[in-house]
Amino acid sequence: MKLTILGCHSATPRTDTNPTSQVLEIKNHMFLIDCGEGTQVELRRNRIKFSRIKHVFISHLHGDHYFGLVGLVNTFSLLTRETELHIYAPKGLKEVIMLQMKLANAWTSYPLIFHELTSKEPELIYEDDKVEVHTIPLDHRIYTNGFLFKEKENERKLDINSVTEANINVAYFRKLKQGADVVNEDGVLIDNKTVTKDPQPPKSYAFCSDTVYHEDIVPQIKNVTALYHESTFLERHEALCKPTKHSSAKQAASIAKMANVGMLFLGHYSTRYDDLNEFKIEAQTVFENSKLAKGGKTFTI
Amino acid sequence: MKLTILGCHSATPRTDTNPTSQVLEIKNHMFLIDCGEGTQVELRRNRIKFSRIKHVFISHLHGDHYFGLVGLVNTFSLLTRETELHIYAPKGLKEVIMLQMKLANAWTSYPLIFHELTSKEPELIYEDDKVEVHTIPLDHRIYTNGFLFKEKENERKLDINSVTEANINVAYFRKLKQGADVVNEDGVLIDNKTVTKDPQPPKSYAFCSDTVYHEDIVPQIKNVTALYHESTFLERHEALCKPTKHSSAKQAASIAKMANVGMLFLGHYSTRYDDLNEFKIEAQTVFENSKLAKGGKTFTI
Repeated sequence: MKLTILGCHSATPRTDTNPTSQVLEIKNHMFLIDCGEGTQVELRRNRIKFSRIKHVFISHLHGDHYFGLVGLVNTFSLLTRETELHIYAPKGLKEVIMLQMKLANAWTSYPLIFHELTSKEPELIYEDDKVEVHTIPLDHRIYTNGFLFKEKENERKLDINSVTEANINVAYFRKLKQGADVVNEDGVLIDNKTVTKDPQPPKSYAFCSDTVYHEDIVPQIKNVTALYHESTFLERHEALCKPTKHSSAKQAASIAKMANVGMLFLGHYSTRYDDLNEFKIEAQTVFENSKLAKGGKTFTI
Repeated sequence: MKLTILGCHSATPRTDTNPTSQVLEIKNHMFLIDCGEGTQVELRRNRIKFSRIKHVFISHLHGDHYFGLVGLVNTFSLLTRETELHIYAPKGLKEVIMLQMKLANAWTSYPLIFHELTSKEPELIYEDDKVEVHTIPLDHRIYTNGFLFKEKENERKLDINSVTEANINVAYFRKLKQGADVVNEDGVLIDNKTVTKDPQPPKSYAFCSDTVYHEDIVPQIKNVTALYHESTFLERHEALCKPTKHSSAKQAASIAKMANVGMLFLGHYSTRYDDLNEFKIEAQTVFENSKLAKGGKTFTI
């Protein structure tokens, strides 16, 4: 799994910072998560092929999380894209995009499919044979979801020497990978565990932006491989967290610790701070494996 | 008069090009003309103070001319602006912006005033004691206006030596600047021309993007000091002009020549061209004083 940060500042784009957007590469998918103004240029800068993006997940309808989407949708058309694009977003975004298309008298060259979110409970919103995506209801000033991306249990790995020795027909390899015992060419039942190895444990990534400190999410993100949790403020501005419904670096780290996650990425920094290292230092007092998200940075998860 | 180009490419923003936006400094106004995605960052990059922008003129509702506006409107609020912002744009834009504000549950901190345009005839849309702005109806795929910015006749300049010698009371200086003859301290009528000098002739700037070759605009832009005319294509792609309702560099130059303008700025280049000099060379075969618009460039008019 690879996470590329396109932007991770809050509020307004500036010459050296971009609003929230990131790309998660998981099981051959390129999932675009949030899409602030300038995202399409950041995708180009990071050499991410537009055609590989087939699913976009929008957390909420504050501008710094979606103002770049209409431009991206439009650019895909100008490039005569034909592949479907699925957008998972709070109800309302479809109306915004469709209104702008109507006014431009320009429709997409490809099927554009909206999945409008309204539930306040966690929902399974995407699933295929390798991946699941669930919403993580957050507590912000408007309706907001985080997203939990989970690999499904990986297939068992064939120990090819043992398989050959056990005289198993190739037709049964698929079943072996799925964990079943099979009958070999001599009619003997072979115990799966003797010819396969445990797969890599499935990985998971939770994206949580924007939210006030919200312990309710802990059970859902328990033991994820990596967590992105917003840290708009430092502890010294914690008085701003409640009224704006944002979190401090320390609060993000507390959630990470309680959920026993593998690593924490901090982001959604207020543009008032020049030295982002303060976020890392503050978070690490609570949760050691805290890292700073940064535009253009790719994390291997 | 000073014109700063923030972006002058068509269609999609890229790492090295921005869609249409420019700032015209005229008689202490900073008029923002079109506002493609990324405009607020380009304003910062060009060190143009947000607070000086009080009027925005949007030519038409194709994304490369206005997708940056909602972000700018939003950023002004985040910066707790209090000054009025006037937006002159085709009907529809107000609905787009208001819908997005409603969804964000966030209203502007300042009066936001929309002037919705629907007329297909030239209209006077802004006027004060120094400046007029008129629409220039263009012929594009959707309802589109160019804009004509005109200084009013400047005041006459006092020849301070002659004024003193003529023994004129300071109370009459204002009348003198307005061209009136006045009575001096000795009761003698003084001929205005003997104590004042001709003012600088008023300047004018016409912004014409996007449009197919459209001679109807020539009478309206006759003798303007400077004309920005779109040149999306080179002559060798002129077959694309009619169906897309755009112009070639040569066509832009023909309009400039017919209208006897002082200088021509080319822009709205298709991103298919790497060497923009071809536009200049082509235009100059018809109209010598043709210049290339370029992101970050400021022209003194």
